[in-house]
Amino acid sequence: MEPRLSLITLGVPDVARARAFYVDGLGWQPLFEVPGEVVFLQVGHGLALSLFGAAALARDVDPDGTAVPAAAPAGVTLAHNVGSEAEVDTALADAVRAGGRLVKEARRAEWGGYHGYFADPAGTLWEVAFNPSWSVAADGAVTI
Amino acid sequence: MEPRLSLITLGVPDVARARAFYVDGLGWQPLFEVPGEVVFLQVGHGLALSLFGAAALARDVDPDGTAVPAAAPAGVTLAHNVGSEAEVDTALADAVRAGGRLVKEARRAEWGGYHGYFADPAGTLWEVAFNPSWSVAADGAVTI
Repeated sequence: MEPRLSLITLGVPDVARARAFYVDGLGWQPLFEVPGEVVFLQVGHGLALSLFGAAALARDVDPDGTAVPAAAPAGVTLAHNVGSEAEVDTALADAVRAGGRLVKEARRAEWGGYHGYFADPAGTLWEVAFNPSWSVAADGAVTI
Repeated sequence: MEPRLSLITLGVPDVARARAFYVDGLGWQPLFEVPGEVVFLQVGHGLALSLFGAAALARDVDPDGTAVPAAAPAGVTLAHNVGSEAEVDTALADAVRAGGRLVKEARRAEWGGYHGYFADPAGTLWEVAFNPSWSVAADGAVTI
């Protein structure tokens, strides 16, 4: 698993309120959004910040409500994007071999990609994802 | 305040254990570290991930133990690095004007820089920092 962080997701109580702060208040431009559901902002070279409903994020991580211990850090997940489904499987296996815990086995996602989640030893949640509608450059930079 | 995320800090219960996962397990190379206290890893162009003790992080954010509401997301802070002390003041003022809450007024930091913290409307903590020993390129990329 390459040393790469592609996306930080903030699970927020109110997406419209978060948008009002980052977009209307700070003037950061949305890259892509679904009104009231999710907003993606570019915050660096190949790096995106996502504003996503906290309940939707919790469902995305743990659809059955069984995998995430109560002690897991709330509200923020990190993502490592790769260029294929096979690379998702490889990166998740790398993380487990390194001492991470598989939280969500890799599977097809509603948004057309393929992803899974692992937790590091402190419980930080990392999504490993292949999104066919995003491009991943040779240096790992993601373009939405 | 420019749309830029420079550093993600994970406040972990055990820095050595976090290091064992990211460095020994995943093979990610430290950029800089103080053994047992903090480890910085490069995770993108101008982007660093820091493994820092949870108690030390809490003290850094809120030295008096009064500013952070209990509902604040635990364990993760985001940082926006700038090139001067004056830019720290400007960015914090921008964030407050946009509807953020000042959590730690800008001040000299033990590590030789100048920084403060604000919370976005959902409580996500952002540090705004000038670190004279880090360089900030024109595109915002930070080099440790």
